[in-house]
Amino acid sequence: MAAGDISQLISLADYERAAEALMEPGAHAYAFGGAGDEITLRDNLAAWSRLAIRPRMLVGVGARDAGVQLLGVARPHPLIIAPMAFQRMAHRDGEIATARAAATTGSIMCLSTLATTSAVELADAVPEAPRWFQLYVFADRGVSRELMARAVDHGYEALVVTVDLPVMGVRERDLRSGAQAAAAELVASAVAAGVKGSMTPKQFAGLVDPDLTWKDIERFAGDSPLPVIVKGVLTPEDARLAAEHGARGLVVSNHGGRQLDTVLSGADALPAIAEAAGDRLELLVDGGVRRGTDVLKALALGADAVMVGRPVLWGLAVAGAAGAQRVIEILLEEFDATLALAGVRRARDIDAGFVCPAPWVAPSR
Amino acid sequence: MAAGDISQLISLADYERAAEALMEPGAHAYAFGGAGDEITLRDNLAAWSRLAIRPRMLVGVGARDAGVQLLGVARPHPLIIAPMAFQRMAHRDGEIATARAAATTGSIMCLSTLATTSAVELADAVPEAPRWFQLYVFADRGVSRELMARAVDHGYEALVVTVDLPVMGVRERDLRSGAQAAAAELVASAVAAGVKGSMTPKQFAGLVDPDLTWKDIERFAGDSPLPVIVKGVLTPEDARLAAEHGARGLVVSNHGGRQLDTVLSGADALPAIAEAAGDRLELLVDGGVRRGTDVLKALALGADAVMVGRPVLWGLAVAGAAGAQRVIEILLEEFDATLALAGVRRARDIDAGFVCPAPWVAPSR
Amino acid sequence: MAAGDISQLISLADYERAAEALMEPGAHAYAFGGAGDEITLRDNLAAWSRLAIRPRMLVGVGARDAGVQLLGVARPHPLIIAPMAFQRMAHRDGEIATARAAATTGSIMCLSTLATTSAVELADAVPEAPRWFQLYVFADRGVSRELMARAVDHGYEALVVTVDLPVMGVRERDLRSGAQAAAAELVASAVAAGVKGSMTPKQFAGLVDPDLTWKDIERFAGDSPLPVIVKGVLTPEDARLAAEHGARGLVVSNHGGRQLDTVLSGADALPAIAEAAGDRLELLVDGGVRRGTDVLKALALGADAVMVGRPVLWGLAVAGAAGAQRVIEILLEEFDATLALAGVRRARDIDAGFVCPAPWVAPSR
Amino acid sequence: MAAGDISQLISLADYERAAEALMEPGAHAYAFGGAGDEITLRDNLAAWSRLAIRPRMLVGVGARDAGVQLLGVARPHPLIIAPMAFQRMAHRDGEIATARAAATTGSIMCLSTLATTSAVELADAVPEAPRWFQLYVFADRGVSRELMARAVDHGYEALVVTVDLPVMGVRERDLRSGAQAAAAELVASAVAAGVKGSMTPKQFAGLVDPDLTWKDIERFAGDSPLPVIVKGVLTPEDARLAAEHGARGLVVSNHGGRQLDTVLSGADALPAIAEAAGDRLELLVDGGVRRGTDVLKALALGADAVMVGRPVLWGLAVAGAAGAQRVIEILLEEFDATLALAGVRRARDIDAGFVCPAPWVAPSR
Repeated sequence: MAAGDISQLISLADYERAAEALMEPGAHAYAFGGAGDEITLRDNLAAWSRLAIRPRMLVGVGARDAGVQLLGVARPHPLIIAPMAFQRMAHRDGEIATARAAATTGSIMCLSTLATTSAVELADAVPEAPRWFQLYVFADRGVSRELMARAVDHGYEALVVTVDLPVMGVRERDLRSGAQAAAAELVASAVAAGVKGSMTPKQFAGLVDPDLTWKDIERFAGDSPLPVIVKGVLTPEDARLAAEHGARGLVVSNHGGRQLDTVLSGADALPAIAEAAGDRLELLVDGGVRRGTDVLKALALGADAVMVGRPVLWGLAVAGAAGAQRVIEILLEEFDATLALAGVRRARDIDAGFVCPAPWVAPSR
Repeated sequence: MAAGDISQLISLADYERAAEALMEPGAHAYAFGGAGDEITLRDNLAAWSRLAIRPRMLVGVGARDAGVQLLGVARPHPLIIAPMAFQRMAHRDGEIATARAAATTGSIMCLSTLATTSAVELADAVPEAPRWFQLYVFADRGVSRELMARAVDHGYEALVVTVDLPVMGVRERDLRSGAQAAAAELVASAVAAGVKGSMTPKQFAGLVDPDLTWKDIERFAGDSPLPVIVKGVLTPEDARLAAEHGARGLVVSNHGGRQLDTVLSGADALPAIAEAAGDRLELLVDGGVRRGTDVLKALALGADAVMVGRPVLWGLAVAGAAGAQRVIEILLEEFDATLALAGVRRARDIDAGFVCPAPWVAPSR
Repeated sequence: MAAGDISQLISLADYERAAEALMEPGAHAYAFGGAGDEITLRDNLAAWSRLAIRPRMLVGVGARDAGVQLLGVARPHPLIIAPMAFQRMAHRDGEIATARAAATTGSIMCLSTLATTSAVELADAVPEAPRWFQLYVFADRGVSRELMARAVDHGYEALVVTVDLPVMGVRERDLRSGAQAAAAELVASAVAAGVKGSMTPKQFAGLVDPDLTWKDIERFAGDSPLPVIVKGVLTPEDARLAAEHGARGLVVSNHGGRQLDTVLSGADALPAIAEAAGDRLELLVDGGVRRGTDVLKALALGADAVMVGRPVLWGLAVAGAAGAQRVIEILLEEFDATLALAGVRRARDIDAGFVCPAPWVAPSR
Repeated sequence: MAAGDISQLISLADYERAAEALMEPGAHAYAFGGAGDEITLRDNLAAWSRLAIRPRMLVGVGARDAGVQLLGVARPHPLIIAPMAFQRMAHRDGEIATARAAATTGSIMCLSTLATTSAVELADAVPEAPRWFQLYVFADRGVSRELMARAVDHGYEALVVTVDLPVMGVRERDLRSGAQAAAAELVASAVAAGVKGSMTPKQFAGLVDPDLTWKDIERFAGDSPLPVIVKGVLTPEDARLAAEHGARGLVVSNHGGRQLDTVLSGADALPAIAEAAGDRLELLVDGGVRRGTDVLKALALGADAVMVGRPVLWGLAVAGAAGAQRVIEILLEEFDATLALAGVRRARDIDAGFVCPAPWVAPSR
């Protein structure tokens, strides 16, 4: 397939294959790989397949509404583009292309601290894209404060604080490929403030404060004019702590299977967290969402919205903004058909009754 | 194998392979494919394999009776030919050949609204075939009423109203093959009334009323001189609603895995529905029935009869009426041996005690 | 491997491979095949692998005793050679070679009604072999009575009445191969009395009385001077009936997966039967026993002895009596090591505490 | 890969592959193989994958401590090198190289009775290596007493009495390869006392007293100036007996899957043993530990320390002491990252809350 020709790509799996063929091997290893034996990486997908849908008939689904309420704001659908580092490794237009796809599809884009486009540059280039900012809390708190200030000043609507990277996970694909070296050049430009010169992702991870605690989150949330969403929680215990320490929401996430192998998937962690959180937290989930049916399942398990990561990167690698946009559109079209066929007119009406444990042994997609 | 030579085909799986080799690729994709990742398509078969049979010995099985009671009528066996669209895509004799196989084997044939032979033509050509008529409720109710009237006038004994196609499922095999185009020419002749000119199956689906509710079913059942069977229900909640809104029976079905991927199979949905329905509804099930043992299992789970779809189409593709007939005969011979070996003289005596959850991990047949 | 050279064969799986290479295809298909999709055939093996052993240490296992009590007689070990038809299809010495292996290893040989050596001939040729006689109850009761009388007169110590063949199972390998034809010539000589001329196994099955009931068993057991063991029971309901109708014991069996596909394995059916039978019946089990560990598991689940079928036939095919003998010896050596390593000095002390459900997903061996 | 070049080897699986390519086939068969169908051998690995980690966030993991308390002594980490026979089969430096790796990494080395280096020689060559001595209780108690005395005199800190080898397991790889012959020459030098001339491992096993009981262990523990750890227990019943008969600790172990196939893995046996043992025994576990995450899981299930066997042998085969050292270092690095990412500062704080049954079907690694 020639880069840019996307007329034959009808599913996210098609984009995955096309991106694999097009991406530079080191970039591919970085983007696709996970920690350890990649059991969790694979299970992020399989976990959605372990849920069956219980569809209802004859409820009148001619007019469907994918809209959700998020942080008090009405959104046209529950898809959010997950924060992903180094998007220029996938396509020369990088984060700016992703932001254009977000704007076109009405998706929130969550910009990564490790972006290859700064938060300011992005806001200037695509001001119409709804946007959140992901950040790490650095040992040097000044850096984090400066990042926060810029996000506030440039129209970012929430801060997503990633808490599952006190150290870097062991990603063997990266160690085997030249990804670390390739990424090194990008990191210099990635961290907008405080970081000078070139460094590897691992060196970067060394800047993150591994001694961070919930008290710090509480202080941070108190200082922040934006709602703070904590990303990387997998237990109800931590969900309760998040609610008690000022978080507005959570991303139930295992960092795309990139940090610690054999941890639970978001899909499996979500129900207990939803029960523990009650109404106190907005819940997002990420990891392995590849089908419109997965989005319905996430909402049925208690999520308010769903982050989608790698598939957007595949779209980006294949055809820049147009590819990223098409990936989101496919998911939205599938989600719309899922609403109709599962028999629920409005995304906000999806509840636990629409899913049950699958009786089959889940195939690894 | 030369088309038409069926002496070597001893199982439905043999017919499947033979049909695959003989059918035009687009027609094959349309007939064999399912929605999404085809998890449900495959699971329709695997679900029967997740049940083990508990056979009884020494009950005296020299004389066996496969007969069942259905809509108050005694039938020689519980097999019904499921409604399938465009049967001329499989064989030039299409629905007429299928009707001949139905007549020869004492099976009810359920004619599809999307048949390539009209209800009138079929009744005239094979008047001795026991027949039901499947229909969609169109936004234009006049079309549906006209279809119903013709069915009543031409000896159809029941109306099977399909309710799980408010929109078309995402069938990737079709999107990749030329099936849609191939089918388009057929659709013109398929819908006997109201539709003029050529259209794709997707366009056809657009005619179906997505806003249909149980109230409409109630009205429809009230107007119909024939018993109404609702096809496409997978939950006990909907089974209760069906009983309350005038349905005489249900086909527990996921539309052959063609509409929404990862929904439950009929086999898995059936027990809860049977419990909810009690004596109020006649229960049919379809999806993945490939062996005589599957028929016994369906009856053990609470079905009164079993619809068989794709295998009949394979028989049709391989050898027209003779192939379709032989497919049903193989199933009936297997079912007869199953009665003997499971230790139950009469099909109507099969109850839940004859099955239990299989202790094995079900192989995907 | 040259036929007869068995020095390199160290496991039953080795014998299986060697036999497959040596046997005439039709005979192989007949001997190895099962009913339908062969799910039960395969599961007969897998079922043992779904049990884990809980070994005990430091109980003093220097002197081990594999002996069991069976029908009031002390036997050196719990292995019994299962009744298998047409053993001359595997080796020209047929049942006589098997009897020699039985004599050498102290195993009971259960001669099949469908043997290619008559009960009298066998008793004369190898009088020292401990032997039981398997028989079918024919519609013509005189034939069965005559077979019983000969067994009584010629030193057979028990009658094993097979009850799971009211009709012949659908064995596709046979239908595809020439096995039926090959077997036909043998059947003439197989049934020692009443049957004249050549017939297929299926025709033979037609002689068996499909209307047999427990009442007939009761009458038969009352007439028999030998203890009657009913073979082919898989439910506790039937075990209770057996006890009430004069049976001395049961073989929990699915006829080697040859009769009805997807029935339970002996291993899975045994525990509930053992509970229902209490002390009223001696319990044997067959199907899929390939390792000494399987023998221990059978006894732990409640069996008093274990029938081994196909593996003996493999030994026979590979090297006649010497092969059959070696197969049994391997199993006995493995069982002896299993006693030592599971920490139980005497086979009769094996109880349910030595096994538990395996935590693994059983590999299909 | 050239022997000795380990710069490209980043995981234990890498070492496994490299060792397989480098080792002499008979030695490889001996070192890698297991009993029977190797179900337990494979399950030793899979069992760890059936556990998921529940990671906690934001607990402050900047300073991590892998240290544990063992037999009243503080150790820098919970890894112990398992006793393995004939290490010169893997590398000419054999046990001495392993001891150097132990010394460098702060690991206890447990020397095998079947070592190709005597306990005295090892102590003289690498006096700084922390060391335990594994022994069998021979029918000739004098040999065992002499072995014990030497261990006491030469700085061994504990005696590990292996109790799961009353007879030799059936290891088919050995029977098929020349491993037995190859090993025979080594055995002569392996047993430091009492054994003269050459013998096979099976002959050696014949020296072990199969009539050993818990009473003997009690006597032995009473005589021993060193703490006695019983290796090879898999049931809570035996754990209770161990505590009552003077054992200081247990190694929950199935002898690397080499003795009895289909017994439980250490990982699966551990929880019930931990509950039965309470505070009375120190608990070690071995079998299938290949990742730092496995070490955390072992501690979460109740182990105080973890024995690692084959991977150290792979390191030895690939690059002698440097290879063995690197293998342990990789595990320690992974364990350190696991502490950080699972959110537990100190190994001794790991409890059952950090794991749960994995929702996935465990892949066989």
